[in-house]
Amino acid sequence: MAASEEPPTYFYIGQHDSKRTAPVTGSQVSGAYNAGYDMITSPISNAAYRSKVKSLLSAYQTAVCDEECEDEESVPFPIVPSLTPEHTNLTPDDSISSLLAFTSQWIDLASPDPAVAHVSRQVFNQEIAYAAFCGVNNVVVPGPRHHGDVQLTQYARAISYALSIGPYLQIQILLPMSQEPKEGPPADPEHFFHQAREFFMTDADDESLPSSGHYESWDAWNLIRSVCKFHGRLSVGVSVPRQLPPMSLQSRWFSEPLRFIVFPDSSFIPNNKGYPVLSKASQEMITRYMRLKTPPWVLLQDVGSVQDDSPVAMSFSPSGSLAPTPAEAARSATKPKDTTDPTSHLRYLRHLQATQPQRSMVDRFAVGYQDYLQSPLQPLTDNLESITYEVFEKDPIKYEWYQRAVALALQDLHQQIQGKRPIVVAVVGAGRGPLVTRVLRASADTGVPVSAWAVEKNPNAYVLLQRHNLTNPLWNKSVTVVKTDMRAWQGPILPSGEVGKVDILVSELLGSFADNELSPECLDGVQHVLHPDHGINIPQSYTAHLTPLATPKIHQDLSFRSGDDRWELPYVVMLHQYDYLSLANLSPGMGGKADAEPIPDVQQAWEFSHPLSPAILAQAKLRQGGSAAGGSGGAVGGDGANEHNARFSRMRFKIQNRGVCHGLGGYFESVLYEARSGKQVELSTNPVTMDEKSKDMISWFPIIFPLKTPLHVPDNGEMDVSMWRQTDDRKVWFEWMVEVFHRVDGKRYRLGASELRSSWKNACLM
Amino acid sequence: MAASEEPPTYFYIGQHDSKRTAPVTGSQVSGAYNAGYDMITSPISNAAYRSKVKSLLSAYQTAVCDEECEDEESVPFPIVPSLTPEHTNLTPDDSISSLLAFTSQWIDLASPDPAVAHVSRQVFNQEIAYAAFCGVNNVVVPGPRHHGDVQLTQYARAISYALSIGPYLQIQILLPMSQEPKEGPPADPEHFFHQAREFFMTDADDESLPSSGHYESWDAWNLIRSVCKFHGRLSVGVSVPRQLPPMSLQSRWFSEPLRFIVFPDSSFIPNNKGYPVLSKASQEMITRYMRLKTPPWVLLQDVGSVQDDSPVAMSFSPSGSLAPTPAEAARSATKPKDTTDPTSHLRYLRHLQATQPQRSMVDRFAVGYQDYLQSPLQPLTDNLESITYEVFEKDPIKYEWYQRAVALALQDLHQQIQGKRPIVVAVVGAGRGPLVTRVLRASADTGVPVSAWAVEKNPNAYVLLQRHNLTNPLWNKSVTVVKTDMRAWQGPILPSGEVGKVDILVSELLGSFADNELSPECLDGVQHVLHPDHGINIPQSYTAHLTPLATPKIHQDLSFRSGDDRWELPYVVMLHQYDYLSLANLSPGMGGKADAEPIPDVQQAWEFSHPLSPAILAQAKLRQGGSAAGGSGGAVGGDGANEHNARFSRMRFKIQNRGVCHGLGGYFESVLYEARSGKQVELSTNPVTMDEKSKDMISWFPIIFPLKTPLHVPDNGEMDVSMWRQTDDRKVWFEWMVEVFHRVDGKRYRLGASELRSSWKNACLM
Repeated sequence: MAASEEPPTYFYIGQHDSKRTAPVTGSQVSGAYNAGYDMITSPISNAAYRSKVKSLLSAYQTAVCDEECEDEESVPFPIVPSLTPEHTNLTPDDSISSLLAFTSQWIDLASPDPAVAHVSRQVFNQEIAYAAFCGVNNVVVPGPRHHGDVQLTQYARAISYALSIGPYLQIQILLPMSQEPKEGPPADPEHFFHQAREFFMTDADDESLPSSGHYESWDAWNLIRSVCKFHGRLSVGVSVPRQLPPMSLQSRWFSEPLRFIVFPDSSFIPNNKGYPVLSKASQEMITRYMRLKTPPWVLLQDVGSVQDDSPVAMSFSPSGSLAPTPAEAARSATKPKDTTDPTSHLRYLRHLQATQPQRSMVDRFAVGYQDYLQSPLQPLTDNLESITYEVFEKDPIKYEWYQRAVALALQDLHQQIQGKRPIVVAVVGAGRGPLVTRVLRASADTGVPVSAWAVEKNPNAYVLLQRHNLTNPLWNKSVTVVKTDMRAWQGPILPSGEVGKVDILVSELLGSFADNELSPECLDGVQHVLHPDHGINIPQSYTAHLTPLATPKIHQDLSFRSGDDRWELPYVVMLHQYDYLSLANLSPGMGGKADAEPIPDVQQAWEFSHPLSPAILAQAKLRQGGSAAGGSGGAVGGDGANEHNARFSRMRFKIQNRGVCHGLGGYFESVLYEARSGKQVELSTNPVTMDEKSKDMISWFPIIFPLKTPLHVPDNGEMDVSMWRQTDDRKVWFEWMVEVFHRVDGKRYRLGASELRSSWKNACLM
Repeated sequence: MAASEEPPTYFYIGQHDSKRTAPVTGSQVSGAYNAGYDMITSPISNAAYRSKVKSLLSAYQTAVCDEECEDEESVPFPIVPSLTPEHTNLTPDDSISSLLAFTSQWIDLASPDPAVAHVSRQVFNQEIAYAAFCGVNNVVVPGPRHHGDVQLTQYARAISYALSIGPYLQIQILLPMSQEPKEGPPADPEHFFHQAREFFMTDADDESLPSSGHYESWDAWNLIRSVCKFHGRLSVGVSVPRQLPPMSLQSRWFSEPLRFIVFPDSSFIPNNKGYPVLSKASQEMITRYMRLKTPPWVLLQDVGSVQDDSPVAMSFSPSGSLAPTPAEAARSATKPKDTTDPTSHLRYLRHLQATQPQRSMVDRFAVGYQDYLQSPLQPLTDNLESITYEVFEKDPIKYEWYQRAVALALQDLHQQIQGKRPIVVAVVGAGRGPLVTRVLRASADTGVPVSAWAVEKNPNAYVLLQRHNLTNPLWNKSVTVVKTDMRAWQGPILPSGEVGKVDILVSELLGSFADNELSPECLDGVQHVLHPDHGINIPQSYTAHLTPLATPKIHQDLSFRSGDDRWELPYVVMLHQYDYLSLANLSPGMGGKADAEPIPDVQQAWEFSHPLSPAILAQAKLRQGGSAAGGSGGAVGGDGANEHNARFSRMRFKIQNRGVCHGLGGYFESVLYEARSGKQVELSTNPVTMDEKSKDMISWFPIIFPLKTPLHVPDNGEMDVSMWRQTDDRKVWFEWMVEVFHRVDGKRYRLGASELRSSWKNACLM
């Protein structure tokens, strides 16, 4: 992995006219391009088709009434005839692939009236099939008209079917970003099914009124994509209101496959010169969303027509468009004249594009790695390649912090032994030697003389270490290089020829989840070389941390892999398109404020510290071989010699907003050294403390423990996470389980539980 | 399938002394046998072992205190040495396989004190391993001491590990049948960990007080077996209180792998002669549980010691048993002398065994088929074997009801056509001819002359039909037998040589879920032969019905099969070990009364009726080949000619008591004929109406639509079931999905949803 140059920011911007009643013409497409748009939206069928379908439905209603409304089952549902050239001017031509085709908004796929639903599904399927035939790549489907639970399932089933009709079609569901209860879908006075529905409605589902809160729209999306089994060609587009929803909901959408965001004219405000601009909050949201690995397109909706490049077709001829509502007319009348420029919104977006802030160090480093799942390193069993070392060595923070920690430890020890001799410092697992260099620098900086040792088991790195010692002026042949597994090292040979002890033992064995690359086992194994009275380990201690995550993208990725084992191991991953489920700065029941950056609740699972108590080390030795063992305390097999490194933790997380948990995000913190003065040098990948403790450190990505079955959690729910570090004589592995609870009248009920997952088959070998 | 003789009822009864402090001796085993018991329980280790472990823990506590309670991490946890002959007299001998071995009750596998938990797990694992080594088949593990959520997960993990220690060991968890909140586990004043726990307790989980209601104990079991992934060697035993829990909870335990039921002395009441007997409710519960395919054992707990057959070992010597508590002593003092007979409880149970009521017709028929999953028949594509027909023909009710229906229809039609000619009756899909016989009998009974036709596509059955016609005196060569698929039949040839119409079309094409063997498609296909004005179909209509079920056994069975498809089809199954989740006779919030037999809420999904409206049939014909079709209305592929037989239904079920849904039980009802007089002849497998409509009918087992991931539902939850009957030109299949909701402050929230399952790959071919 290498930090990349920042890619140029480009916004793909589309023109969307929601009142269009016929597919766009070639000249309209060219007009949009010439105005500076990257794409244009288009209906698939026209108003004539709508009239045709309406007349079919009317005929059906009449027939049913003729039957005296008693035996309506004897009248067959209307059959919508195939599309004809009169009903659509869409054809397979050069511009078709850049169109964003909209299926009709006037249908109702999940109408409680079965005739309306039947007709709507025919219209929908015909449009999808024709768009696919013509070579359209992207079809936008307006979200469900009803949010009643009954209708949602039916709607989702129709989308699932549409994905099977067009095998190459990308389908996007258009939803409002946030929907207040009872607000309902945008009113459509022209919706010709209104009457039909009122006439036929027999199964009004009044009980199924939308549940409260901003998350209703996300809820609908969640159900749709679940029914569609996280389909790879299904994504979502959201329409942005002028008043943005809470940051927590913005984050939720960030975690989803967000293909586009729609800014209607109403989401803009005039600046002091009368030009349309977006609120500060909306600008920040755009910046955030544009950091997505696949940045969403921006659709500008109803912000003024652009000139066709030929006068042949007029998209806004009186016959082709609907008259504005009185409210719209009133609003546009109050606008200053300047903004009648049909491309002022577009020009504003291009301005935003040009003024995007620079990405952070970590973001730039992460480009290309976002949400890419890697198996954790096993440096104990595998010998690393030089390139892997090189990536680690590039970290601008980590080695600097090690140098500070060593310097503080040198000063403390120098004082303690009253400067009688050089301090013996050994770097175990020295790799290509970066820590040795830092030890020597710390010695030079503090003026405390050291006797430096470098211990490395990798025979290839050993060659490099020796060369460094010969050629590097700082090393200056002063370092003793030893080739051995640190656990087999006898210790430094003193000038007297005796085997001595190490005063400071420096190692970099931490993994993304602190102990997951077996730092505890390695350091136990080398502790015999450490000075029993004043020996110092750097790092002194480390802790593993967890928080529950929504990661639909990673879940989708894993779902489409094969093998049951894929759910039974943690992955190292630069988490990118995800959402925190448990927030530390939201009270239960609060939706959160729009301007509050969500801070996750990240809890500590367990801690390791070094050196270990001699009594525990002695007992571990005694148990080796089984002579003292009476059965291991929980792990499968073995004599229990490593059992002091087993851990169990149970954490309780409050969940403020409903969601789905796809896994647990894992992080670490480490105290490299706490000086006698109380000064601490720390590393952290914990998102809550990383900026404070080791900002811009890039060496570690987080780890994720996935859940095979996503776990629903309600508003104000609780998640209990159980995490085990298991061990036998040969290996270490993790087990994890999540349970969901809610409280009713102060009592706590279990709502669900994940399976117990275990990385036993993919354990780290000791 | 053939109805079996009723197997003799036998109760396997065990003697359980909860105060034993050492493994039983051979003579104790013989003593129990001689007294009439089938088995005896035994601890695995003895009181000396307990003392040894206690002293280890005390030493640890002292060591920690010596360290001034500050750095307790530096003191290693106690290591329990291996078992010695001093600690157990269990040996691999002849009697060992009939022992029910108990792991120690004084340990605490999930203590919040890590040292106690560590020691407990060592004791537990040693006992399990030693019992397995000795050849014990069954180990009983006392349930968790704490019902706090933290402890439960730890306990479950320990059980999961134990299953891996003994690869042949059956493990049973002993739980109270019902546990009231705050009652807590049975107090054990001798529990030596009490002090230790109080001393160490740092993480008291006061918030995790048990949630309310009778289901807490079941909840614990549910979590344990989920963590153990529905392990085949894990089952449960319940201890029965004198006051039984509600019937709904008794049913829940019935659905679980119930290996034994424990009756403590306290669950008995003295009869008027002073002998111990069980309450009426307990007797009925025993009768019910003994109907399980694998009937549970009965353990009589602390009901009096039996004589050893040799004086060598005394199991109740003062050193080997604990003194009774004052309460126990008081209670036994008030007992009439008669009951000091140590086998009076056993003799009472044997009396119950001898007086068990006879099983019902259906139960007897079902023996051997309980919970056995079969794929639904596909009579349209497969030709049935004679034996299959024979099983169907054995039904004592079904053909009788057909005869009644035909008789009523004959009378109605005879009146309508004023007796001018014989009524033309055709049996389509005549098989071996049982319906033809019934038609002829109905004709004879009513005196209405018929012209009888038998249409059959199976060439093998056709041979038999012709033979019947020649040899059966009732048929008397009067039946015209036609070999053809009914859909290709031209109709009856009149004496004039013209093709006539059928007055009554009799068929038996129903499947377990009404239309799942394609009765609608077949009858549509033959409708052209039916008299257009007065033609009658028998059956006239049929409906499909559903209710959500807990079926852990079936879930386990499917879990251990291979292939993803196994979750994507319904199974015909004689449901046996299951529980209804939605009850019609319980109000929400009510636990239910102990004496109320639970009545499920079974809802109608959809209906089919015959004959079809001519207009709909005409449209279907028109759509064949795609000439009139404008895309099918939801099903994948096809021209939509069968779309009028597609169905969708959404049902809402109230769930009173928390549970886990493993699938949907499916049933049917059918109106064979409704006479002009209003008299109806009906068939039903719907458990709510079957006794009223067609009691003792055995031809159909229910159907189950399984869920891959069991779905949790809370107390007073709601389940919304979506069910589709999908169709294209070639086949019919089902899709199903379940969502769980709860209401908070009158608002409805989705808590979870199953995946959308589809039997498309296993569809019925038309």
